[in-house]
Amino acid sequence: GSIANIEKMSPDRVPLCLDLLPALSGEDTTKDFFQELVNILLSYVCKSFRRSSKVLDFHHPHQLREGLEGFSLELPDQPENLEQLLVDCRDTLKYGVKTGHPRFFNQLSSGLDVIGLAGEWLTSTANTNMFTYEVSPVFILMEEVLLRKMQEIVGWSEEEGDGVFCPGGTMSNLYSVLLARYHFFPEVKTKGMTALPRLILFTSAHSHYSVKKSAAVLGIGSENVVVVKCNDRGKMIPAELESSIITAKDQGCVPFYVNATAGTTVYGAFDPLNAIADICESHGLWLHVDAAWGGGLLMSNLHRVKLQGIERAWSVTWNPHKMMGAPLQCSAILVKKRGLLKDCNQMCAEYLFQTDKHYDTSYDTGDKTIQCGRHVDVFKLWLMWKAKGSEGFGSQVNKCLENAEHLFDKLNQRPDFELVFKSKPEHSNVCFWYIPPSLRNMPPGPERNRRLHEVMLHLGSLMLVIY
Amino acid sequence: GSIANIEKMSPDRVPLCLDLLPALSGEDTTKDFFQELVNILLSYVCKSFRRSSKVLDFHHPHQLREGLEGFSLELPDQPENLEQLLVDCRDTLKYGVKTGHPRFFNQLSSGLDVIGLAGEWLTSTANTNMFTYEVSPVFILMEEVLLRKMQEIVGWSEEEGDGVFCPGGTMSNLYSVLLARYHFFPEVKTKGMTALPRLILFTSAHSHYSVKKSAAVLGIGSENVVVVKCNDRGKMIPAELESSIITAKDQGCVPFYVNATAGTTVYGAFDPLNAIADICESHGLWLHVDAAWGGGLLMSNLHRVKLQGIERAWSVTWNPHKMMGAPLQCSAILVKKRGLLKDCNQMCAEYLFQTDKHYDTSYDTGDKTIQCGRHVDVFKLWLMWKAKGSEGFGSQVNKCLENAEHLFDKLNQRPDFELVFKSKPEHSNVCFWYIPPSLRNMPPGPERNRRLHEVMLHLGSLMLVIY
Ligand SMILES: Cc1ncc(COP(=O)(O)O)c(C=O)c1O
Ligand SMILES: Cc1ncc(COP(=O)(O)O)c(C=O)c1O
Repeated sequence: GSIANIEKMSPDRVPLCLDLLPALSGEDTTKDFFQELVNILLSYVCKSFRRSSKVLDFHHPHQLREGLEGFSLELPDQPENLEQLLVDCRDTLKYGVKTGHPRFFNQLSSGLDVIGLAGEWLTSTANTNMFTYEVSPVFILMEEVLLRKMQEIVGWSEEEGDGVFCPGGTMSNLYSVLLARYHFFPEVKTKGMTALPRLILFTSAHSHYSVKKSAAVLGIGSENVVVVKCNDRGKMIPAELESSIITAKDQGCVPFYVNATAGTTVYGAFDPLNAIADICESHGLWLHVDAAWGGGLLMSNLHRVKLQGIERAWSVTWNPHKMMGAPLQCSAILVKKRGLLKDCNQMCAEYLFQTDKHYDTSYDTGDKTIQCGRHVDVFKLWLMWKAKGSEGFGSQVNKCLENAEHLFDKLNQRPDFELVFKSKPEHSNVCFWYIPPSLRNMPPGPERNRRLHEVMLHLGSLMLVIY
Repeated sequence: GSIANIEKMSPDRVPLCLDLLPALSGEDTTKDFFQELVNILLSYVCKSFRRSSKVLDFHHPHQLREGLEGFSLELPDQPENLEQLLVDCRDTLKYGVKTGHPRFFNQLSSGLDVIGLAGEWLTSTANTNMFTYEVSPVFILMEEVLLRKMQEIVGWSEEEGDGVFCPGGTMSNLYSVLLARYHFFPEVKTKGMTALPRLILFTSAHSHYSVKKSAAVLGIGSENVVVVKCNDRGKMIPAELESSIITAKDQGCVPFYVNATAGTTVYGAFDPLNAIADICESHGLWLHVDAAWGGGLLMSNLHRVKLQGIERAWSVTWNPHKMMGAPLQCSAILVKKRGLLKDCNQMCAEYLFQTDKHYDTSYDTGDKTIQCGRHVDVFKLWLMWKAKGSEGFGSQVNKCLENAEHLFDKLNQRPDFELVFKSKPEHSNVCFWYIPPSLRNMPPGPERNRRLHEVMLHLGSLMLVIY
């Protein structure tokens, strides 16, 4: 078996983790242990890419908790030996979801970029933190280079642009609301919301729930998020936005922020950014573009036109862990106005952010964030960029959207599927219903919808979307 | 060199990342590439553990940006080949900080737990997300098992306790304030802070700055954080807390939350939890214990007495990535009252958290969090726990504190160092000054302090603390 070396290496006793580095004699045991681990991991990766393997061997929570075939989740008082740990690793993968499988369609991320994976392995080996230049010199600079590149691609000039990588697009969206509030009402940082009028923000009915969540967390309140109507393709209707803004003002509230979505979660719709930017400009509102999902299209000369106007945003969320295929997680918040992130978030903790260090402490970017310790999310993306080049990302996006069109065309020709939209997809979302023979001749209406919904349940998933 | 296989394998042309999986013929190239990478990573790890190597080969930001010895950070348009990527990986490690080095003392985390590292490699290979059971069955259950165990160790009964792993202790502390506010004023979620009276929270002068940061982010305002005086060992003075609470009430404000620190960042001080809990009880305030740093001591039968009273907390922050040595990042917020996390944070997004799935959807824990996608931070800790057992963590903590005492005793005997405290350390923080010959006979006072401070600057670091 794949733990043969470990077995071979110590015929007389079973090695424990105490035998690994930094024990004096640990070097060989460590290398053997990792060799076995890598065998397990790589054979998992290779297997995941085969269509013939299962995406998931499903078990209910209680089944897994009870310990399937000796796979126990319980935490022991006494150490397990290295052999058993390798078995645990294999079992963990065995009962998990193969997200790199060609038939894994459950989320906005799929596939496994092996260069990105290599990047993650290095990141965890380096095991450092993004707070200061002195503890992360290389990664801090890579973050700067990546952010600068992404800002350039968004279309901002060299004089503008700032940003930070954060733990997911929801956090990136939260930053945008936080920054907008601080921009208009800097006293909020010290005095809190009680010093402020009733603030209102706007987002479309098809936008991601993180905008509402952010409003709840930040003390603005989810009811102060006005949900703007969309057209039947899931795009925000600019006239509706404008009238909502006017209504809010009439009620004595203070509109300050609009979220436009470039690539909605379910339909893959792009809000009309220029029209929305015009409205924001005339009312003096912060325009955020949530391009968590659609940002990747900026890499393609063919498709970036769908995000026309994004350069007018005051902030942009862009998740390389979605359309660009970076391993989870990798999300950036880009901010047009330089210095705002720092002013908004810094607390100047003396034990960490001393200003009399011997190097340029503007690279101690940790105080820009709402975290303290911060995971290194940039290296994998940097390495992927080296491996593909900007053009490689572009072709990848093009290919993915060609596939979506292909799927659309195929489904269009079949009686057993019904497309939700009659026109070609703009992103890689292709929305459809499966129509079983018994429903093919049923007239449209609520009863048919109810039964279609039931069919979906039987198919084991309510995800109506294939990416 | 270590990229020999890659070179060997394709004598006629240089392989690109397109030659890796999922390319049809990619399996062998992928394995060779990873084999070379693993050689690089493991020889880095082994080298890091040697005292004779440098902790850091320091270069200024502009030097690294200009490209040292051909190491370019710039993002290309065209792909680089696999050989070059491996060189990039080596360079990245070369110019970084060896956080696993025995002489790396810069942060509250140090060393490199190789089992934790193995756990991270597996985590990134599985590349999944913590939002629902269906996409992370094993990791969701491991989170449950770990949280349950940690709650038991804190001392909560079987009927109480909930929690979630989040991206760092600062986020965990933010959760605690968010939950406390929601507990007392559930309308805040929908109506925002403008519906509320002026809220006040309390934390000690030596507490971590994340409490203030959270107040700023949540819209409470940093000025509404009352900083309670500490004694000369950095412990909160309960009488000062009580009088601050009374003053705030007299001013018409509403106290609602107290943060007590179990293991302060700089001194390693433990606030008197029972005395603080008494005051919180009598005033009906939420007690949070920030045991980000000190939580590890709960694993030791010798030292857990320093956190006596922690079981009376309403919430606890505990970072296994600090004292327990888990790779970054790994932090838990534990909450006594079950259901509160969900009530406070859920938005019930239909596309993700359908309630009519075919399994027990209480395991779809994603809606408890303020994130959407969430990195898997639990597996490394779970695997470490298997490898050491609870007792192994206990011995590790004991050993670390013995080392601190040893350092304290040594410094105590030397004329060239001055200890900040005359009594033994409670945690592994040992605070001291280096006294150069020219200052040894100077009387105490501001001038001497100023010059000692300058000495520290010349030593290249202002960190006054060795862990
Ligand atoms: C006492 C204390 N609380 C909280 C934190 C924040 O933890 P993190 O860096 O994981 O955000 C720290 C970090 O040093 C700390 O020392
Ligand atoms: C449009 C959009 N914005 C934001 C997010 C949140 O991203 P994350 O899961 O990284 O928090 C998503 C996630 O699906 C999304 O589709």
